[in-house]
Amino acid sequence: MQFTALQIATLIKGKIEGDPDAKVSHVAKIEEAGAGSLSFIANPKYEEYLYTTNASIIIVNDTLEVLEQVKPTLIRVKDAYSGFASLLEKYNEIISRKGRNGIEQPSFVSKSASIGKDVYIGAFTYIGENVIIGDNVKIYPGCYIGDNVVVNEDSQLFAGVKIYDGCSIGSRVILHSGAVIGGDGFGFAPQKDGTYRKVPQIGNVIIEDDVEIGANTTIDRATMGSTHIRKGVKLDNLIQIAHNAEIGENTVIAAQTGVSGSTKLGKNCIVGGQVGIVGHIQLADGTRINAQSGLSKSVNEPNQALTGSPAFDYKSSLRSQAIFRNLPELQQRIYKLEEMVAQLSSQLNNQELKEK
Amino acid sequence: MQFTALQIATLIKGKIEGDPDAKVSHVAKIEEAGAGSLSFIANPKYEEYLYTTNASIIIVNDTLEVLEQVKPTLIRVKDAYSGFASLLEKYNEIISRKGRNGIEQPSFVSKSASIGKDVYIGAFTYIGENVIIGDNVKIYPGCYIGDNVVVNEDSQLFAGVKIYDGCSIGSRVILHSGAVIGGDGFGFAPQKDGTYRKVPQIGNVIIEDDVEIGANTTIDRATMGSTHIRKGVKLDNLIQIAHNAEIGENTVIAAQTGVSGSTKLGKNCIVGGQVGIVGHIQLADGTRINAQSGLSKSVNEPNQALTGSPAFDYKSSLRSQAIFRNLPELQQRIYKLEEMVAQLSSQLNNQELKEK
Amino acid sequence: MQFTALQIATLIKGKIEGDPDAKVSHVAKIEEAGAGSLSFIANPKYEEYLYTTNASIIIVNDTLEVLEQVKPTLIRVKDAYSGFASLLEKYNEIISRKGRNGIEQPSFVSKSASIGKDVYIGAFTYIGENVIIGDNVKIYPGCYIGDNVVVNEDSQLFAGVKIYDGCSIGSRVILHSGAVIGGDGFGFAPQKDGTYRKVPQIGNVIIEDDVEIGANTTIDRATMGSTHIRKGVKLDNLIQIAHNAEIGENTVIAAQTGVSGSTKLGKNCIVGGQVGIVGHIQLADGTRINAQSGLSKSVNEPNQALTGSPAFDYKSSLRSQAIFRNLPELQQRIYKLEEMVAQLSSQLNNQELKEK
Repeated sequence: MQFTALQIATLIKGKIEGDPDAKVSHVAKIEEAGAGSLSFIANPKYEEYLYTTNASIIIVNDTLEVLEQVKPTLIRVKDAYSGFASLLEKYNEIISRKGRNGIEQPSFVSKSASIGKDVYIGAFTYIGENVIIGDNVKIYPGCYIGDNVVVNEDSQLFAGVKIYDGCSIGSRVILHSGAVIGGDGFGFAPQKDGTYRKVPQIGNVIIEDDVEIGANTTIDRATMGSTHIRKGVKLDNLIQIAHNAEIGENTVIAAQTGVSGSTKLGKNCIVGGQVGIVGHIQLADGTRINAQSGLSKSVNEPNQALTGSPAFDYKSSLRSQAIFRNLPELQQRIYKLEEMVAQLSSQLNNQELKEK
Repeated sequence: MQFTALQIATLIKGKIEGDPDAKVSHVAKIEEAGAGSLSFIANPKYEEYLYTTNASIIIVNDTLEVLEQVKPTLIRVKDAYSGFASLLEKYNEIISRKGRNGIEQPSFVSKSASIGKDVYIGAFTYIGENVIIGDNVKIYPGCYIGDNVVVNEDSQLFAGVKIYDGCSIGSRVILHSGAVIGGDGFGFAPQKDGTYRKVPQIGNVIIEDDVEIGANTTIDRATMGSTHIRKGVKLDNLIQIAHNAEIGENTVIAAQTGVSGSTKLGKNCIVGGQVGIVGHIQLADGTRINAQSGLSKSVNEPNQALTGSPAFDYKSSLRSQAIFRNLPELQQRIYKLEEMVAQLSSQLNNQELKEK
Repeated sequence: MQFTALQIATLIKGKIEGDPDAKVSHVAKIEEAGAGSLSFIANPKYEEYLYTTNASIIIVNDTLEVLEQVKPTLIRVKDAYSGFASLLEKYNEIISRKGRNGIEQPSFVSKSASIGKDVYIGAFTYIGENVIIGDNVKIYPGCYIGDNVVVNEDSQLFAGVKIYDGCSIGSRVILHSGAVIGGDGFGFAPQKDGTYRKVPQIGNVIIEDDVEIGANTTIDRATMGSTHIRKGVKLDNLIQIAHNAEIGENTVIAAQTGVSGSTKLGKNCIVGGQVGIVGHIQLADGTRINAQSGLSKSVNEPNQALTGSPAFDYKSSLRSQAIFRNLPELQQRIYKLEEMVAQLSSQLNNQELKEK
C-alpha cells in the first residue's frame, strides 16, 4: 500500500514542505530509513539525519529549523511524535480487520446468541448459546466463545482465542491468539489413597474494559465467584493467572509470569517477566517487581520495588547479589582470618608461658 | 438457572429447615454471600455468619445447633462440606457439555474413525484416520485428533486441544484448551558446519486414566517409545513435559514448570510452579519441590522436600537464603574482624618489641 | 504398519544376514527391544545384546564380528547409526502428512491467495488475502494464515498454528501446534492518568529457512521493521520472543525461555530452558547459557558460558553457588572468630594491665 505526502498531511493535519506527491510504502526509524520510507524526527538529537537520510517523507515539529537543503518531503505538525503515533494507529486500523463486517462462512453461531452491529466473525469461529457480542466486535477465525459469554463493544479477538462458558469480556479489550480465558482453576482435594478429587470450578473470569492480553496467556476461572482482570490491565504472552486472582487497574505484567490462586495485585503495579507470585497474598498499589523474582509474602506498603527469589527490597537485594558474586573472595578472607587468629592466639599463649 | 431448596435437598438427601421454595441462582462463600446465594457452613468458626448472612440457602451439618432465629433456609446433611462439593459436581455436569451428544456440523470425521456411544464432537473438530473415540467422550469445538489416536471413555477435551498422530489418552481424562499432546521432542544432532539435523521423533505420548492437563500445556512425543503420564497425574497450565519423560502416578505439578527429556518423576510428587527439572534424572516417590526451584540431580530418597536453584534440602536452603539476605551485614562483620585482628596483631607485636 | 528385512535393506542399501522375510512393526532401543522390533547397534558396548535380544531385525556396522549364533536378522551397513537415522526419517515421512496433497474441506482459501504445487491444506485452515504458499507446503487442520503472509516451499505447519498478517516464513520451516507468529509486541506508552496507550505494532516477523519452532511458542511482530529468526534456529516449546528481537543463525533455545524486546542473540548460541534475557542487549556468537539463568547485560566476547540469575561466568558462578550452600557453616565460622578475637583482645588487655 502506498500513501502520498498529501494524504498523510491531510490525515494528521500537517503542513507540507516539498513534493506533495512523494510516496511512501512503509515506515522506518530515521537512522534506518531508505527510499520509500516514512519517518519522523521529534528529538533534536536526530536532526542531523535530516540532511543525509534517504527517507521519502519525514514528519517533523513545527519549530524545526532547516539549515541546509533537504531531499525528503517534510510534513510539519505541532508534535511530530504524537503525529507519527496517531498515523500508525490509523494505518493499523486500515490494515487490520477493524474495517471488516459480517459473518464469514463456515462458522457456527448459536441461534440464541445475540450479535451486535458491525461485528466481524471469522470462519471456523464458534459462538455458543446465549452469547452476547457487542457492536463493532471483531472476532478473527478459529475462535471459541463458550455458552453465556459476553463480549462488549469494540473488542478484538485474534485467531484461535478460547473463552470458556460464562466469562465476561469488557469493551475495547484485545485478546491475542491462543489466549485461554476461563479454564478450570487447579483445585484438587487429596484423598486418603493418594489420589486427588477434582474440586469443581464453577466461577468465571471477568475482564474489564481496555485490557490487552497476550498470545497463549491463560486465565483460570474462579472456584466460586470471579477471577478479576481490572480496567486497563496489560498482560504479555504466556502468562498464567490462577483461579480467584485479581489484577488491579492499569497493572502491567511482562511475559511468562505466573500469579497463583487468590492473590491480589493492586493498581498500577509493574511486574517483570518470569516472575512467580505465590497464592493468597496481596501486593499494594504501585508495587514494582523485577524479572525472575519470586514473591512469597504480601507487600503492604505501596510503591515498593522488589527483586530476587525470594524477593526483598530492590536495593538490599542488589547488595546481596553483589556480595554473592564475591563469596569466593569473602570465604578466602575468613580462612585468612582464622589463620591469623590462630597465630595470634599461639603467640599470646607462648608469651604468657614465657612470663610464667 | 435457579434452584429451590427442595430441589437441592432432594439432590443431596438433606432435611429442609425453613422455606422449601427459597431460590438460589449462584453459590458463594458464607462471608460474601448475598441474596440469591447458596452457601455452606462446615467449620464452627463460621457459624456466627448464620445470623447475619443474606444467603438464601445454607447447607449445614446435621449437628449444628441454632441459637437464634435465622433468615436463610437451612439444609441439614451429615457432612456439609461433602454435601456442598457433591452439589457443585452435579451443577458442573448440568452446565457443562457432559450432557451433550452427537456430532456438530461442520466437523471432519475420517471414515476409518470409530466413534463410541453418547459422544459429543463439536464443530470444527478434526478426527483423523483410524482414530478410536470411546463412549461418552466429549470433544469441544476446534480440536485436532491426529491419525491413530485413541481417546478412552468419559474423557473431555476442551476447545482447541491438539493431539498428534499415534498418541493414547486414557479414561476420564480432562484436557484443557490449547494443550498440545505429542509434538516432536526437541532433538537435533549438531553437524560439523554448525547446523543441526533433526532427529526424527517417532515415539508417542501415553496419558493414563484420571489425568487432568491444563490449558496450553505441551507434552512432547518420545524419540522412540513413549512419554508417559501415569494414572491420576494433575498438570496445571503452561507446563512443558519433554520427550521420553515419565510423570508418576498421582503426581501434581503447578503451572509453568518444565520437565526435561528422559527424566522420571516418582509417584505422589508435589511440584510447585516455574520449577525446572534437567534431563535424565529420577525423582523418588513423594518428592516435594518448591516453586521456582531448579533440579539438577536425582533425588533418590523418597519424601524429600527441596527448594532453590540449584535445589537442595528445604531447611538448609531456607537457612542459606536467610543468610543471603544478611550478606551485607556479614561482610561488615568480616571487615570489622580484619580491623580488630590487625589491631591485636600490632598491639601484640609492640608488646613483644617492648619486652625485648 | 509392517516392514520386512528385505524392504528395509533396500531402503538403506544394506546386506541381509538371516531371514529376509523377518517383519518389524516398531522401533526400539536394543536394550528394550522385543519381538517385532527393529533396532540398531552402533556402539561396541551394546554388542552383548546381540545374543540376548528378542528384536526381529537389527541394523549393524559392516565391521561387526558375530561370535555366536544370533536370532535376529541382521542388516549390515557402513554406519549403523546413520543408516538407522535415515530410516527413521523415511519412516517419519511415510507416517506424516508429507505425502498428502490437496485442499481438505471445509477450509477457507482467499481468492487472492496463491497456492503452489503438491500443497496440503487441512480442514478448518484459513488462508487470508494475498497469501503465497510455496510448493510442497503441508498445512495441518485448524491453522490461521493472516493476510499477506508468505510460506515458502517444503515447510510444515502443524495443527492450530496462527500467523498474523504480513509475516514471512522460509523454506523447510517446521512450526508446531499452537505456535503464534506475529502477535503484537508488548508496547504501551504510560499516560499521566496512570493508564497506558497502545503503541501500534506495525512491523512483522521474518522466519528464515530451516527453522523449527516448538508448540505454543510465541514470537511477537516488531513495532517497526522485523523480528528476525535467522536460518537454522531451533526453538523449543513455550518460548517467548519479544518484538524486534533477533535470534542468530543456528542458535538453539530450550523450552520456556524468554527473550525481551530488541535483544540480539548471535550465531550458534545454546540457551537452556527457563532462561530470561532482558531487552536491548547483545549476546555474542557461541554464547552458552545455563537453564534458569537471567541475563541482564550484553555478552561481548564470543563463546562464553554463563549461569545464574543475574548470570555471570559459569565457573565463578558455580563456586559462589557452592559457598551459598555452606553459608550457615561460614556464618558459624565468623561467629567463632568474633568470640576468639574478643577473647584474645581481653587476654591481651589483661596482660597489659598486669604489666602496668
